[in-house]
Amino acid sequence: MGDMTARRELTTYPPSNTEDSEAMARIREFLDRVAPPTPCLVIDLQTVRDRYLELTEALPGARAFYAVKANPAPGVLRLLATLGAGFDVASIPEIELCLAEGARPEDISYGNTIKKRADVAKAFALGVRKFTTDSMADLENLAECAPGSSVFCRVALNDTGAVFEFGSKFGCASDMVVSLLARTGELGLHPAGVSFHVGSQQLDPAAWDAGIAEAAEIAAKLASDGIQLPLLNIGGGFPGNYTVVSPPTTHYATVISDSLARHFGAAGLPLPEVMLEPGRLLVADAGLLRTEVVLVSRKSTADDHRWVYLDSGRYNGMADTENDWIYFQLTTPRRGGETGPVILAGPTCDGTDVWYHNRMYELPLELRAGDHVDVLSAGAYSTSTSCADFNGFAPTTTHCV
Amino acid sequence: MGDMTARRELTTYPPSNTEDSEAMARIREFLDRVAPPTPCLVIDLQTVRDRYLELTEALPGARAFYAVKANPAPGVLRLLATLGAGFDVASIPEIELCLAEGARPEDISYGNTIKKRADVAKAFALGVRKFTTDSMADLENLAECAPGSSVFCRVALNDTGAVFEFGSKFGCASDMVVSLLARTGELGLHPAGVSFHVGSQQLDPAAWDAGIAEAAEIAAKLASDGIQLPLLNIGGGFPGNYTVVSPPTTHYATVISDSLARHFGAAGLPLPEVMLEPGRLLVADAGLLRTEVVLVSRKSTADDHRWVYLDSGRYNGMADTENDWIYFQLTTPRRGGETGPVILAGPTCDGTDVWYHNRMYELPLELRAGDHVDVLSAGAYSTSTSCADFNGFAPTTTHCV
Repeated sequence: MGDMTARRELTTYPPSNTEDSEAMARIREFLDRVAPPTPCLVIDLQTVRDRYLELTEALPGARAFYAVKANPAPGVLRLLATLGAGFDVASIPEIELCLAEGARPEDISYGNTIKKRADVAKAFALGVRKFTTDSMADLENLAECAPGSSVFCRVALNDTGAVFEFGSKFGCASDMVVSLLARTGELGLHPAGVSFHVGSQQLDPAAWDAGIAEAAEIAAKLASDGIQLPLLNIGGGFPGNYTVVSPPTTHYATVISDSLARHFGAAGLPLPEVMLEPGRLLVADAGLLRTEVVLVSRKSTADDHRWVYLDSGRYNGMADTENDWIYFQLTTPRRGGETGPVILAGPTCDGTDVWYHNRMYELPLELRAGDHVDVLSAGAYSTSTSCADFNGFAPTTTHCV
Repeated sequence: MGDMTARRELTTYPPSNTEDSEAMARIREFLDRVAPPTPCLVIDLQTVRDRYLELTEALPGARAFYAVKANPAPGVLRLLATLGAGFDVASIPEIELCLAEGARPEDISYGNTIKKRADVAKAFALGVRKFTTDSMADLENLAECAPGSSVFCRVALNDTGAVFEFGSKFGCASDMVVSLLARTGELGLHPAGVSFHVGSQQLDPAAWDAGIAEAAEIAAKLASDGIQLPLLNIGGGFPGNYTVVSPPTTHYATVISDSLARHFGAAGLPLPEVMLEPGRLLVADAGLLRTEVVLVSRKSTADDHRWVYLDSGRYNGMADTENDWIYFQLTTPRRGGETGPVILAGPTCDGTDVWYHNRMYELPLELRAGDHVDVLSAGAYSTSTSCADFNGFAPTTTHCV
């Protein structure tokens, strides 16, 4: 057991300032009044609204397409549809969900470059006219099954700096983007623009610069052949606030706007209309995931650390803890007293269902079974990554307040 | 893109011999006749039956409790109940599922050491009388909510050699096992025995020796205090046949029986009755997971490898590919022609939804969208680890033939 202690770095995380916010008060009021079964996620819709408005004010010329996969709760989709947001979707069920919650087909962008031919046809039948591609095979499907649609072509970037890297799976080389977009018009489709993604939870606003530079270069090459790209999709990556607090949205907006002006100006091109695909930025901080302590134990009388087993783990809500990707802020009762190091783990019989492998958390020594441990900024990729029933545990439920 | 190639070791996997088996013929007949939507898992029940009978014949004194989490398909549970198997369960829903498929409550073992107090009470109300623990807090819950039940106490082992390690999350130190089992009787419960787990997909039959030695030592200590342990739960870990073919079950049985005789003999103790918890052994090789090729593409004209995107990935059936844990055998159409290296990936917009990060597979150059790629020995931890709807994709369905 001693090895485990040695492998983990001990870190103390104070509760976030958001603990005293109005949003937190609304969430706590709901939890106190309803006492829903745990684990559950509570989303404060006012926070989603605030974040959306902050973003669109910071980048007034840009259009935000919400990354539905971050949290497909109907209440979130309905609110964003009301606010005039667009929706970035990955599949037919996500399209149907958005439409059911009031989205217009013209506000939906089928951003997944991996699409069955039949799904392209179905999306087209549902009215979707914006698609992203990164291959000739997919472009040919779009030409045949979604004629006249607008096509974005995704360029692959080296996305160092992001917590989650996307570079290798999506997008293609710059010269392939040029040839795909050049073919688009000939195939009866509209070349809409370049898209790229800097990687999820991107804490460096300068990370967008390389993609914008690449996009301007591609646009210049195509312009010299008489092909204009009216749009630019700068993807997602805008972060939530976890234990590492992220730069303000206005800072992202300034840095990105500067990059746009610089690179498109240098290429002698007009500024394209900007699309972006925020996920975490809109929903992460809006959510509190309430868990219950199932068991507190020590593995040996000699251990100075405890194991705290919660009713949520990587299979039912806390997938972002895998590989120590994201250290979340936690709040617990019984604060103020003495604390000690703990290893957090989920409720399944799976040995990998341990929240973190490189750090312990400091939690009250008095913490006991039945107490709630609340995970802050847990609104993104929590419920949406829940397993259907691994070990018999149901997916984490969502409540919007 | 060149980096990706360099990071991966190129390996060729020929189709398994099981391709020509009767089981495969039954599965293929079903797939040809029904043509179910993909991705889907087809389980050959005759193989499950064969594996169960092989195991119980190889270890005639032992009692097998099927690890339900490996594959909770009702058809599998019903078959095993008919054969007289026991069931190792992780939660109340798994207990209810087993009971619904014909299991008797006395044949159910609640093997999860992480249990809410209310769940202990509910299990007891459902007739369950076998529980595993590794802490005083849980033992006290058992005493209050499941009086008179049989209790196993799990000892933590250093389970090197297994593909999946369990040592750190479950079990406790040997001296703590002794004191917990010593308390069991005083609390109105029956001390049933020690349990341990050598880690899933354990390819070394000798790995059980350390646990058996530890169990004999614990049993000897308790015997000297007048406490007899009638049982020993040697857990799961019995493997499936993937690209690395595992030793035969009879070999495991011989090595384990030798260890039992040696260690309990040396301690001057009678042999305990053995319980085991097979999961993969019974269902892995019984299952074929059929996927469809969504897209085949290259990221650059210079790439010598292709990306093959399938409609199944780590979020909807292929979780065992994470961290390159298990290399599965694949079969494809268009065999016989030229092949080339491919990176396999799932259908979601998630950059980590790539099957393997350290190896490429060799697949036919003629492979194209719409072709089926069949994953052999995929009956364990595939459907059971599917997400409810990440990216809008439904969990992989199961068909028993």
